[in-house]
Amino acid sequence: MRDFLPADVRKREYVIGIIKQVYESYGFEPLETPAVENIDTLMGKYGDEGNQLIFKILKRGEKLDEAIAERGTRNSELSDLALRYDLTVPLARVVANNRNELPKFFKRYQIQPVWRADRPAKGRFREFYQCDVDVMGSESPLVEAELCAAIAEVLERLGFFRQSYRTLLNHRNILFGLLTSFGVAEDKHLAAITIIDKTDKIGVEGVRTELAKTGISATSLKDYTQFVADLGKSSSNLDQNTPREVNELFLGELRNRLKDEKSSRAIRDVERILEFSDAGPAKDAILISPWLARGLSYYTGAILEVVNYEGNFRSSLAGGGRYDGLIGMFGKEQIPACGFSLGLERILVVMDERGMFPPEIAESSAADVLVTIWSPETKVQSLQLAQELRSTGLRVTLYPEPDKLGKQIKYADSIKVPFVAVLGESEIADGTVTVKNMKTGDQQTLSRADAGGLAARLIHAS
Amino acid sequence: MRDFLPADVRKREYVIGIIKQVYESYGFEPLETPAVENIDTLMGKYGDEGNQLIFKILKRGEKLDEAIAERGTRNSELSDLALRYDLTVPLARVVANNRNELPKFFKRYQIQPVWRADRPAKGRFREFYQCDVDVMGSESPLVEAELCAAIAEVLERLGFFRQSYRTLLNHRNILFGLLTSFGVAEDKHLAAITIIDKTDKIGVEGVRTELAKTGISATSLKDYTQFVADLGKSSSNLDQNTPREVNELFLGELRNRLKDEKSSRAIRDVERILEFSDAGPAKDAILISPWLARGLSYYTGAILEVVNYEGNFRSSLAGGGRYDGLIGMFGKEQIPACGFSLGLERILVVMDERGMFPPEIAESSAADVLVTIWSPETKVQSLQLAQELRSTGLRVTLYPEPDKLGKQIKYADSIKVPFVAVLGESEIADGTVTVKNMKTGDQQTLSRADAGGLAARLIHAS
Repeated sequence: MRDFLPADVRKREYVIGIIKQVYESYGFEPLETPAVENIDTLMGKYGDEGNQLIFKILKRGEKLDEAIAERGTRNSELSDLALRYDLTVPLARVVANNRNELPKFFKRYQIQPVWRADRPAKGRFREFYQCDVDVMGSESPLVEAELCAAIAEVLERLGFFRQSYRTLLNHRNILFGLLTSFGVAEDKHLAAITIIDKTDKIGVEGVRTELAKTGISATSLKDYTQFVADLGKSSSNLDQNTPREVNELFLGELRNRLKDEKSSRAIRDVERILEFSDAGPAKDAILISPWLARGLSYYTGAILEVVNYEGNFRSSLAGGGRYDGLIGMFGKEQIPACGFSLGLERILVVMDERGMFPPEIAESSAADVLVTIWSPETKVQSLQLAQELRSTGLRVTLYPEPDKLGKQIKYADSIKVPFVAVLGESEIADGTVTVKNMKTGDQQTLSRADAGGLAARLIHAS
Repeated sequence: MRDFLPADVRKREYVIGIIKQVYESYGFEPLETPAVENIDTLMGKYGDEGNQLIFKILKRGEKLDEAIAERGTRNSELSDLALRYDLTVPLARVVANNRNELPKFFKRYQIQPVWRADRPAKGRFREFYQCDVDVMGSESPLVEAELCAAIAEVLERLGFFRQSYRTLLNHRNILFGLLTSFGVAEDKHLAAITIIDKTDKIGVEGVRTELAKTGISATSLKDYTQFVADLGKSSSNLDQNTPREVNELFLGELRNRLKDEKSSRAIRDVERILEFSDAGPAKDAILISPWLARGLSYYTGAILEVVNYEGNFRSSLAGGGRYDGLIGMFGKEQIPACGFSLGLERILVVMDERGMFPPEIAESSAADVLVTIWSPETKVQSLQLAQELRSTGLRVTLYPEPDKLGKQIKYADSIKVPFVAVLGESEIADGTVTVKNMKTGDQQTLSRADAGGLAARLIHAS
């Protein structure tokens, strides 16, 4: 887990600020939940691997003593609380518990850290921020389309160009339909999806090997591999074909192969999401990806992933989907829901590598001006000057003790302050202040009476 | 631990926004640290009670199995990580670890949650936010003065009037000097301070009883009680005397009683903090409080507490002080430090009770306008209108499915949206939109061509 020094925090806040602004412009409202949940709320929602990766909090006081005293203690009895693993399960709990207080359609965003006891890797941390946006209460594919639009607008505002990212779209029932069409038995569907989800990590060959282990027949496996290869060929034509053309091609393949009621409805949903997305910023950013199979077990409908391409390197910026069954696990009522989660860390890694931050963020300073202290006798004068400048809206830092002027200037340089206000004995006697421009080295002696004017000059000059 | 629904989050963000703005105007820079620290970093820094209240995280995988397998496991072996208990110890760790990357004087603020396994009470929670501001690297009392000024400015900007709060100021060495002057042996000083710190909870009588148990002599106890009573009388004259007069009175008492070198230096520090504070917004807000004795064991110099008075009810809004020995516990170098911590929850409780939030925060809406959907055939038209309005800067929410107009209006009302844009078949045919003002009930049919003009009208009207 990492500390964020000031320059890091500023970059993070810049990105979070844009995400919030865009989410709010779509009518999403902020929600915050505690870092710590009851362990029962989290266990069993993320699959077996997820259960392992949840940080569990030790019981306290007598309850802990009891748990330890019992022979044959299993570790599940040592813990009653756990750290939030994602923002979706806490949201489902909140919606189930506050149904009467929340509007019929609850559109919320939530930007908070989550924790996973995973092995750290590039862009993967044990504490990381998710920027979630979800709509509760509607089954309409308009919801998916608006979520895709909001995410596309965030990425555009941050400077990600349309060419560098795509929103991949699939549907759980298309996946299930495909698996059935390959002869995979229904009770193996979820296991197969978990394996297919790892394609990026272990490759198509790895997926074949693991699928074979689950007892899927050789014929099914061959059929699946052929299908993936065919679609792979189509999507590699992306350079020549527009996303719209590739989507039409994929939809044709799917319509041919999947004729059952459930799959057909899923295909229609996908068509509608594409149609509705044409009206906004996600136009031409969405690409059907029939082998997209996100790992989390709670998805029930559309599944989504935003992928950023940098040459041959592909990284996932966001993921999401529809989970119509989750809220019902926390209450009596089954409420449809769909959401998207942007990964702050992934976005920051790409933005850092490409130098995508505006200069005022990339080269931020601790303050606009540093006020020096000439001698023990003039401390109060310097304090007063600092307050005068602050009252004009400037960010002003005061050197905390009398020191050689050279040292004070050196310090100003180290915190990248663009101006230094020198208040020596002669300045105090004359009611003036000498302002040094740290970039040009220019010095000007100005009247102190007009602090506002001075501030305007400083801001204008910087 | 609590969930924060949108209206709560907006209030919290309003307060945090002002705190950040003021801290930045004093040249403080943002820092963030992880929620989870190594358990060794935290244990032993907060006293015995603190150790008990730290949330500890269970070891994982093989390490946990080993810990459980060992007979006679003590619970200290079951945990390797813990949740942040305050923001000061993590700061000390960061400064010790990043000495070369950080400026000579590191002025940082940090606004993050901390966790304590305490019994919840009014305004006390197991997860709560601290808004810390600290200066590392200088022993100058200018630092204390600037911290008091920043805190005073935050409270003023939030609408706390000078009459309702005071910053109480004391010094560890004044406390130690007083205890010595009462005949309390040096090895009982820390125990006595912990007891005196509880005066608010258990009263002066309770303090007497507990002090007696530590073996402090009856004479010392009588002497102490007399002193507290005398000072109490002086401070009850606050109605007639200005804080400055009361401070002079207290300083006189202290100067008479404490003649040793250490105490005298502490008194001089206190005098300087008062003098330097006169130059800024903490002028006349600081009150010497010779029995102020904050509980945390790491304080070494000035100690500070901001107290809010509401009739006879007194609540603590912020606490702080100088801790010149803490950073040295994490590294070779001893670096002086001083800081202040504002409690977000306490501030929010008072602001809620007094209705101190501006109307736009207290009655916030999910969006500026809701766009309705007339029929399945007009969904795309509504999506387009929503995008057009968004592009003008409005926050626009789209009803997610076709529905009876009455229901859509009712929903708009439930999320407090001030305007509803109705796009029926006739509006679509005419290139217009009908805008309903939810407050007045007025309806106007306007041209869609001029979305910008429409937005301006909406914003102007609301």
